[in-house]
Amino acid sequence: MSVNLAVPDSAELYPVSGVRLGVTEAGIRKADRKDLTVVLIDEGASVAGVFTQNRFCAAPVQLCREHLGRGTGIRAMLINTGNANAGTGDDGRVRALSTCVALARKLHISPQEVLPFSTGVIMEALPTERIEAGLDGALADAREDNWLRAAQAIMTTDTVPKAFGQQVKLGDALISITGISKGAGMIRPNMATMLGFIATDACVSPALMQQLATELAEGSFNRVTVDGDTSTNDSFVVIASNKATHVPIVSWDSPHGQTLKAAMLDVALKLAQAIVRDGEGATKFIEIQVEGGKTQAECRQVAYAIAHSPLVKTAFFASDPNLGRILAAVGYAGIADLDQTGIELYLDAVHVVTAGGRHPLYHEEDGQRVMKQSEITVRVVLGRGAAADTIWTCDLSHDYVTINADYRS
Amino acid sequence: MSVNLAVPDSAELYPVSGVRLGVTEAGIRKADRKDLTVVLIDEGASVAGVFTQNRFCAAPVQLCREHLGRGTGIRAMLINTGNANAGTGDDGRVRALSTCVALARKLHISPQEVLPFSTGVIMEALPTERIEAGLDGALADAREDNWLRAAQAIMTTDTVPKAFGQQVKLGDALISITGISKGAGMIRPNMATMLGFIATDACVSPALMQQLATELAEGSFNRVTVDGDTSTNDSFVVIASNKATHVPIVSWDSPHGQTLKAAMLDVALKLAQAIVRDGEGATKFIEIQVEGGKTQAECRQVAYAIAHSPLVKTAFFASDPNLGRILAAVGYAGIADLDQTGIELYLDAVHVVTAGGRHPLYHEEDGQRVMKQSEITVRVVLGRGAAADTIWTCDLSHDYVTINADYRS
Repeated sequence: MSVNLAVPDSAELYPVSGVRLGVTEAGIRKADRKDLTVVLIDEGASVAGVFTQNRFCAAPVQLCREHLGRGTGIRAMLINTGNANAGTGDDGRVRALSTCVALARKLHISPQEVLPFSTGVIMEALPTERIEAGLDGALADAREDNWLRAAQAIMTTDTVPKAFGQQVKLGDALISITGISKGAGMIRPNMATMLGFIATDACVSPALMQQLATELAEGSFNRVTVDGDTSTNDSFVVIASNKATHVPIVSWDSPHGQTLKAAMLDVALKLAQAIVRDGEGATKFIEIQVEGGKTQAECRQVAYAIAHSPLVKTAFFASDPNLGRILAAVGYAGIADLDQTGIELYLDAVHVVTAGGRHPLYHEEDGQRVMKQSEITVRVVLGRGAAADTIWTCDLSHDYVTINADYRS
Repeated sequence: MSVNLAVPDSAELYPVSGVRLGVTEAGIRKADRKDLTVVLIDEGASVAGVFTQNRFCAAPVQLCREHLGRGTGIRAMLINTGNANAGTGDDGRVRALSTCVALARKLHISPQEVLPFSTGVIMEALPTERIEAGLDGALADAREDNWLRAAQAIMTTDTVPKAFGQQVKLGDALISITGISKGAGMIRPNMATMLGFIATDACVSPALMQQLATELAEGSFNRVTVDGDTSTNDSFVVIASNKATHVPIVSWDSPHGQTLKAAMLDVALKLAQAIVRDGEGATKFIEIQVEGGKTQAECRQVAYAIAHSPLVKTAFFASDPNLGRILAAVGYAGIADLDQTGIELYLDAVHVVTAGGRHPLYHEEDGQRVMKQSEITVRVVLGRGAAADTIWTCDLSHDYVTINADYRS
C-alpha cells in the first residue's frame, strides 16, 4: 500500500541522451525478480553524488566516494538489490570492487569509472558470481528509454516504482530530466536517500556538480523520514550527460542555472516524497511545517522529533486527534530554552493550540476530520524567531511491524 | 502482557513509618477504576525529586518544582491518572494548584506542602471537581501498608502494578525501603520516569536528598526506554521519613550512606526495569551494554540509538537475527569519528561481528536461538576507549501499535 502514489507513466520519463539503462534477473536473493541494473554513461558526462553519514557505511558507498573523488569521470553504475554489502568488513570492499572490475572489463573502461550500489540485507556476503553472471543480460538490455524498468529493478520492500521526469527549455534547447529512487524502510536519509539517481542531458560544468548534488539532497531527500533509521547505503547521484546544445552552465546564479536547478529539485523532491508515500506500511502522508524558530536547524530538529515519535505516528495511523502527543514531541526535541507558552499548533487550517494550551475554539471533531484524511499538514509555530523548515513523513501502522518482522523470512 | 514481571507480593512491600497511602475511585476518566491516590507524609521528612526535561512539562510538574524549591517541607502528594494536565496552559496551573489547595485545607497544611502528579491524556482540562470530591474517600483509605493498592491506582496502560521493597540494617536499625512506579508508553525518561516514588524510614539530612534523587534516577529511570518519547509528566520523588532510630546520615560516603543508597538504587532499578518489562506491547526484555567507548555519554548514545531503532525493535519482536540492523544503528548514533573496523557485537555469549564484519564462526542458528529468548543481552564493543554504559528496552510489537492507535477510544 502507498499513499496517493501512482505507477509512473513511462511517457513522462524522458530518455536522457547519453544515459542508457539495462536490467536483468541475477537471482541475487530471490528468483524471478529483476535485481541487477546497469547504467551506462557516455564519455564526457559530469557526475557527482552524496552518501550516507552512517559510520557503518556499506562497502559500495566507500568505493563510490573513492571513485568520484578521483575526478576522472564516471562511465557506468552497477546497482543490485537483495544484498546491501554492509557490515561485511574488508571482504565486502573486495567483493564490491570485483564487480566493478568485471563490468569495467566488458566496457573496456577502468574499474574506477564504475560506481557500485547495493541495497538489501545487511551483514551477508555479496554473491559476486551471480552479479557477474548477470552482467551480459543487463548490458544487452541497455536502452535510453528504460527508466521505468530500472525503477522497478531497484525496488526492495517498495510497493510502487518511483520515477519522475520533467522537461525545461534552456534557450532553444529542450532539456530532459529523469530520476528514479527506492526507499521503503530504514529511511532517515542524512545527505542522501537509500538510492536516488537523477540524470539530465543539460550541459553543466563538472565544477558545479558537487554543489548541485548537495543542494538537491538538502532540499529533498534530507527532508524525509519513514522510521528514523539512517541507512548504511544511502546514495544519491546526479548525472549531467552534457549532450544538449545550449551553452554550458558555469554558474548556478545564471538564468539557465537557476531554471535547471529548480527543475531538478522538483524531480528530486517528488522522488523523495514518493519514498515517504511508499514508506513501509504507510497509510498517511504527513507534511510537518515548523516556523517561528531561531534557526532553520532547530525547526528541522523539532519537525524530526514529531516525525519520529512512535506515539504521534500511531495516532496518525488511528486517525486519532490525540494531539498532545505532538506537543510532547515539541517539548523533548532538545531546544533547551523553548517557552511552551509561545507555541501554536495547527492541523491543516484547524487551530488546535494557542499559547501552549488548547485553543478555546478548538473542537475535537475538527481535528478528527483532518486526521481522517490521507494527507495532513501539521504546522507548529515556535514563536521565537523567523526561521522555518518543512519535512515529510508517514504514519506507523501494523503493516510496518509486519513487514519488518517478516522481512527476511 | 509483560515480560517476566510478577504481581508484587504485598508481604515484601514493607510499610514505611510516617508514610500513609490512600486510594479511591474519583471517576476522572473512566468509572469503576481507582484513579486517585494520596500520600500523607509525617512532619519532619526529607523529600526531593527530579522531573522531566521536556520543555512542554505539565502543570503539576511545574508546581512540584516550585513547591520543592521552597525547601519548607512536603506533607502530602496527590496523584491522579486519566488526565496528564499537560498542554493546558495557564488554566492547567490554576487547576493543579486548586487541587493542592483542596487537599491542604483538609489536612490543615499549606498548599505549597502538597506535590501534585498527573498522568493520562494530554491537552484536556483536569476535572478538578471530581478530584476534590474524591479526596475524602482517599484520605479515609490512608494506611502505611497500602503500597500495592497505590501501585495499582497509578496504572494507566500498565498491565502489572509495579512495586518493590527491601530492608537493610543500618547499625541496629532495620530500615524499610518501598517504591512504586508506573510507565507503559511515552517512556524515555530524562531525569525521571513517568511516575516513580520511593520512601524509606531512614534518617537522611535534607541537604543530601536532591543528590540522592538525582543519582537514583541517573542509575535507573534514566537508563530505560520503551518508545523514545520523553513524557511531559515524568516525576520521580524520594522520601526519607526520618522515623528510624539510627544516627542520621549526613554524608553519602559514610558506611550507612553507602548501604542505604545502594539498597535504594536496587529498588529504583527494579522499578525502572519493571516499566520496560511492562512496556506497551513488550514481548522481550533487552539489555544493551555498550563498552569500549571514549566516554560513558557516547556509550549511552549508541545504546539509545539501538534501543530506539524501529527496525531493531521489530527484529527482536520477530525473533529474527537480522543483526545488521544493530550495526546500522551503531553507525548512525552520531559518533562522527567512529571506525567501523573496530566494532565487535555479541548477542548473549554469541560473537556475531568482529572487526566490523560477520564473525567467521558465527552461525545464524546461534543468533536465532538467543533471539527466541524472552530476555536478551546485546553487547557492543566500540574499541576506542574504556568507558561503558548499560540501558534496558523492549521490542516493538503489533500490540504497541494497537494500544497506541486505540488509547483514547
